[in-house]
Amino acid sequence: MRILVDADVPAAEACFGALGEVVRLPGRQIDAAALRDVDALVVRSITRVNESLLAQANRLRFVGTCTIGTDHIELNALEERGIAFASAPGCNGDAVVDYVLGSLSALAERQDWRLVGRRVGVVGAGNVGARLLGRLTAMGIDCLACDPPRVEEESAEGQDLTGFVDLKTLIEDCDVLCLHTPLVHEGPHPTYHLLGAEAIAELSPGTVLLNAGRGDCVDGAALRQRLAGQGDISAILDVWEHEPAIDGALRDLAEIATPHIAGHSLDGKRRGTHMIYRALCKQLGLPVRVSLDDLLPVPPLIRLALGSGLVAEEALRLCLRAVHDVRRDHDSLLRESRRQGMAKGFDACRATYPLRREFATLEVALPEADERLVAMLRGAGFRVAAS
Amino acid sequence: MRILVDADVPAAEACFGALGEVVRLPGRQIDAAALRDVDALVVRSITRVNESLLAQANRLRFVGTCTIGTDHIELNALEERGIAFASAPGCNGDAVVDYVLGSLSALAERQDWRLVGRRVGVVGAGNVGARLLGRLTAMGIDCLACDPPRVEEESAEGQDLTGFVDLKTLIEDCDVLCLHTPLVHEGPHPTYHLLGAEAIAELSPGTVLLNAGRGDCVDGAALRQRLAGQGDISAILDVWEHEPAIDGALRDLAEIATPHIAGHSLDGKRRGTHMIYRALCKQLGLPVRVSLDDLLPVPPLIRLALGSGLVAEEALRLCLRAVHDVRRDHDSLLRESRRQGMAKGFDACRATYPLRREFATLEVALPEADERLVAMLRGAGFRVAAS
Ligand SMILES: NC(=O)c1ccc[n+]([C@@H]2O[C@H](COP(=O)([O-])OP(=O)(O)OC[C@H]3O[C@@H](n4cnc5c(N)ncnc54)[C@H](O)[C@@H]3O)[C@@H](O)[C@H]2O)c1
Ligand SMILES: NC(=O)c1ccc[n+]([C@@H]2O[C@H](COP(=O)([O-])OP(=O)(O)OC[C@H]3O[C@@H](n4cnc5c(N)ncnc54)[C@H](O)[C@@H]3O)[C@@H](O)[C@H]2O)c1
Repeated sequence: MRILVDADVPAAEACFGALGEVVRLPGRQIDAAALRDVDALVVRSITRVNESLLAQANRLRFVGTCTIGTDHIELNALEERGIAFASAPGCNGDAVVDYVLGSLSALAERQDWRLVGRRVGVVGAGNVGARLLGRLTAMGIDCLACDPPRVEEESAEGQDLTGFVDLKTLIEDCDVLCLHTPLVHEGPHPTYHLLGAEAIAELSPGTVLLNAGRGDCVDGAALRQRLAGQGDISAILDVWEHEPAIDGALRDLAEIATPHIAGHSLDGKRRGTHMIYRALCKQLGLPVRVSLDDLLPVPPLIRLALGSGLVAEEALRLCLRAVHDVRRDHDSLLRESRRQGMAKGFDACRATYPLRREFATLEVALPEADERLVAMLRGAGFRVAAS
Repeated sequence: MRILVDADVPAAEACFGALGEVVRLPGRQIDAAALRDVDALVVRSITRVNESLLAQANRLRFVGTCTIGTDHIELNALEERGIAFASAPGCNGDAVVDYVLGSLSALAERQDWRLVGRRVGVVGAGNVGARLLGRLTAMGIDCLACDPPRVEEESAEGQDLTGFVDLKTLIEDCDVLCLHTPLVHEGPHPTYHLLGAEAIAELSPGTVLLNAGRGDCVDGAALRQRLAGQGDISAILDVWEHEPAIDGALRDLAEIATPHIAGHSLDGKRRGTHMIYRALCKQLGLPVRVSLDDLLPVPPLIRLALGSGLVAEEALRLCLRAVHDVRRDHDSLLRESRRQGMAKGFDACRATYPLRREFATLEVALPEADERLVAMLRGAGFRVAAS
């Protein structure tokens, strides 16, 4: 069994080595000839898997992409040949949720408000959004969700859709809006400029708008105008129109501006590999012998012991900031885009991004079982050891 | 034995209660009549201790001020009456050093440089400056010092003054300048505008100027011009000319701008009380039964366990940021001075300042004895438990 794996897929030997011979090639060098006598192919988004790539594939039975997106894969071509396929949906969902909690917390500290007591609206309740809703709810933070495609599908199935509202209601009733929608141009629920000029104009003063879905879901020019004009709302932006050549004025007006790194955790990348490994095991009818934990190194920050008398939100800030400070990413985008120019600086930040560890890698020890605090920290994703 | 203590002196009962009857009065209400039948007086800077205050003091034998400054005390008046006196020099020196390390580290991260490898010049090597030199040296960071009054005195005494240079040499040879001088108008070594227009114009591009001594030691207008014009140096300012009505343009141009809070640690305040308590014990010929540790509550962050594979400077940043993030203080000055106006906002930040804990309260556990890392973290002031 020969398994060809993109050279930039981390921990591939540790996973796939148990299943066969692992051959590595840089993603751009994976061509039709390279697929001869290969049984399984594991790629990232850089390799286009289409008719011409598959032309000489004489033994290929499995293709996996360690990414959440599948735009680079011609699924029909695989299906026609009876080649099994797997991607890694949601592999970096927790990383994005970490980013959202960390940046909302940093903004709350800067602006002197508290997360608990604000209502958060989540637009797009898929792999990222649903995780976010789960964590916020566990933290005791009031939420609403908007996801018409899910509502359509799940109401037909008779599922519980409490807390799901339409976009207008969500905008009216929430203090914080988090966008986690994909970019959809056609069909009944397009997301291009989902938050358009009109919606942006109607946001209540004090609203916080966070976009970590796709840049095109927000009308950037309208947002820039509102921020530059009234300046009475705040923006946290990880995704942008026209990446990497993003709008510098909008970058300057955003309270937190980061270069599409919300999902960039080390855990997420390894999880992507591991999901494909699991799919291949299943396909081969073999047991899963390597666990995700086997692939993860010890984190820089292992444990943190808190004293008593901390207000829950302060304890939360302390833990969030200790694991990852989103202001570092903000500062590095500013610095590099000024130093190298916008597009180059944006890409440079992404290319050299020091992969974060996820909140779940941190164990927090508390002196006594303060139930509210335990719930808050566990809800946020930390492992809490209350003595 | 009656001990009159300013109501805002923390932990006074715990200390002075063991020595006699403690009477509390707000600092502004401590007047001549209040001093009748009082044996010892403990004040903060708000109470002016002068002839008229002492007029009815029939039993007073001791005056202590829990502050480093003594401008509010007429020392002659005490001496004439044979009243012993104590102040608390250096009680918040470690807090200021924490501030310096924290803000240099935050700036280094933002600007993408490392502390190790830069040379730091310390102007004013007194209680704060000497501690800073000690910690930097222990961290393996190259330093120079400038303190002509000390050099004059100590060279006469034949002391070792290696590393002490004149201001011109220090400015030429250092990448980072830290000012910790008091305000001196007269005499052979005045400090008013010690860093004047000429010196500021000559700073090499890339220089970092930090002032946590007194605002008037730096020519603020000249600094503002250099920052607004060439913009090729960086400023970290905790003290300002004309506090609290400071220059808003200079505040905006400073990389880190804080409202004279470098010394505001909880440990420092308690240490101030404890120093006066010790002085009173000595004066009374009594043993010191209460230790400083008895007065200090458990800190919010007790212990932090690091994993392996961390670069020393990253580990340092992680620890510094976990205990205290100076950007919080920067953000709060910006926010409150915009919200309430400059002078009011500046004072409000100070009045509501959440007292920090000092680095020495944090225990850092390391997985293995990486000597460089241990030295770096111990040098910075943390308690390091290397297993
Ligand atoms: N910033 C980052 O680093 C980062 C990381 C991961 C994912 N993402 C992006 O976030 C988006 C969401 O990722 P995901 O993994 O959760 O995807 P997903 O497909 O699992 O979920 C998307 C959800 O959006 C919903 N949706 C579609 N159209 C909608 C509309 N008009 N209104 C409201 N909801 C709508 C879908 O029904 C679905 O539930 C994707 O675009 C992805 O590229 C960004
Ligand atoms: N920002 C804050 O929160 C904060 C906290 C504590 C102290 N301070 C200030 O910091 C300054 C230093 O405090 P300290 O406790 O170390 O005082 P200190 O008196 O112990 O030390 C001051 C040192 O400056 C030296 N000095 C005097 N004139 C000088 C000159 N012309 N050039 C170089 N050095 C000179 C003195 O010789 C002395 O060694 C004081 O002004 C104090 O008010 C500020």
